[in-house]
Parts: sequence; C-alpha cells; structure tokens
Amino acid sequence: MELRELTHMKQTPQRLAIIEYLNENKTHPTAGDVYKAVSERFPTMSFATVYNTLEKLKEKGMVVELSIDTGKKRFDSDLRPHHHLLCIRCREIFDVFQDYQLQLPEDEFKGFELVGIHVDFYGICRRCKDLETKNGDL
Amino acid sequence: MELRELTHMKQTPQRLAIIEYLNENKTHPTAGDVYKAVSERFPTMSFATVYNTLEKLKEKGMVVELSIDTGKKRFDSDLRPHHHLLCIRCREIFDVFQDYQLQLPEDEFKGFELVGIHVDFYGICRRCKDLETKNGDL
Repeated sequence: MELRELTHMKQTPQRLAIIEYLNENKTHPTAGDVYKAVSERFPTMSFATVYNTLEKLKEKGMVVELSIDTGKKRFDSDLRPHHHLLCIRCREIFDVFQDYQLQLPEDEFKGFELVGIHVDFYGICRRCKDLETKNGDL
Repeated sequence: MELRELTHMKQTPQRLAIIEYLNENKTHPTAGDVYKAVSERFPTMSFATVYNTLEKLKEKGMVVELSIDTGKKRFDSDLRPHHHLLCIRCREIFDVFQDYQLQLPEDEFKGFELVGIHVDFYGICRRCKDLETKNGDL
C-alpha cells in the first residue's frame, strides 16, 4: 500500500510507522511482530493500539489478513493479486505471483459467476528440507 | 467425521449433538448457528460450551475451521480433501470436490516440497444472479 493512499485515515506518526513496517517487511507478520518492531521507535505505543490500527487498516481494505497459518492472524500490505505458500515447518509464508486459471466443475456450478480465486499452498521449504536431511545424517 | 471416531473425547450428549448437527448440516455454520440449533434440544447449553467444544474438536482435527468468509469462523466436519466457493452476496459456502494439479513457479521454489493445496473461489451464485437480474428488471 502506498503511504499517499492514507489520506482518509488520520495520519499519526504511529500509524505511518505501522504501515511503513508492513511495506518494508514482507514476512506477513502477526500483530505481535508489528508491535515488537514499532514499539522500539515508539516505546509508549501499546499492543492495543497496534492491534486496533491493523484492524482498521483491514476494514478499509488497506491491508489483508491472511488465514493460511491456522489460528494466527497475519497481515499483508501487498494488495496485488497473489497466492500464498506456507512452510509447515518454519511457518514462513512466501508470496506466489502466478496467474492460475481454474475452472469450477461445469455441471454443478453452471451459472455461477467466478470473480476471483486464492490458492493456499502447503509444503516444506528448501531450508527446512536441508535441515532435516542434515539432522537425519547425524 | 464419524461418531465412532469420538472415542478419545468424552462423549456427552451435548457434544454428540454438536457433531451430529455439523454432519447433517453441510452449510459450514458459525458457532452461533450451531448454538441456535443445538440449544433447541438442550436449552441449558451455553454459547460458551458450543464455542469451546468446536475449538476442542478443531484442535483434535475432527472439524476444520474455514477462513474464506473473512472475519467469521465457520466450521466443516467433512475431512475429505476439497476446496471452497463463497458467494459474495449471500455468503453461502459450496464444497468443490475437484483435484486441481497446480505447479509452483519452478525457478523461485526449486526444492520446495509441496504437500497440499486449498483453493478459495469467490463469485456470485446462480440464485443471487437471478435475483439481481429480476430486481434490475423492475
């Protein structure tokens, strides 16, 4: 998200710091991660402020909440259409920029107008696989 | 989920009623929906009991929590691999039993071991489209 798009929200320095952090850290952080980083610059900022700001940004469609990592709210400020890939070992989330053209089963969903798809991929990343191989060799 | 699989949880009549409701109602209900239905049979059952039971069943992998309907926890007791389709008008969730074989971008994800995918489809169902056409004609 571009900072200049923030015109319809009150631009407190704290709020800008949260957006900046999300834009610069494409790790799909949790509210806790954002709080940890941003509170170093703003030691008086509470976790509640960070949490509520993220919820407000989400409501306004300025960040997206991901659900791929079950039970954890993680945030993404990249609004371009893309998919996600979760490493089930280290829980890192990777962005997948690829246009998948999927068809719904024709008979069952005749007349359904498809407007978008989102794919969640699950697997084991190269780093975790290497680590497992290495530990297996010991 | 089969009722006989419940052997590792205390089988209170309330708990069985919740599972039965999920098995018989493939509408991907919220905790609120389950509470509304089951409390008719068990008027003393609290919302907290329903909510906590669903969370426990989820922890044990006996129901799955869906995240397609942003901001709402909805539950599915069908553990067969399948995808979901949300009507963005009426919020009905349809099951999509189709095996999609998707490849990750080769260069970027070389060495990544893929173990599963889940697709969320978004669109407008036939009933809502018909309704819009009808209302547009008035």
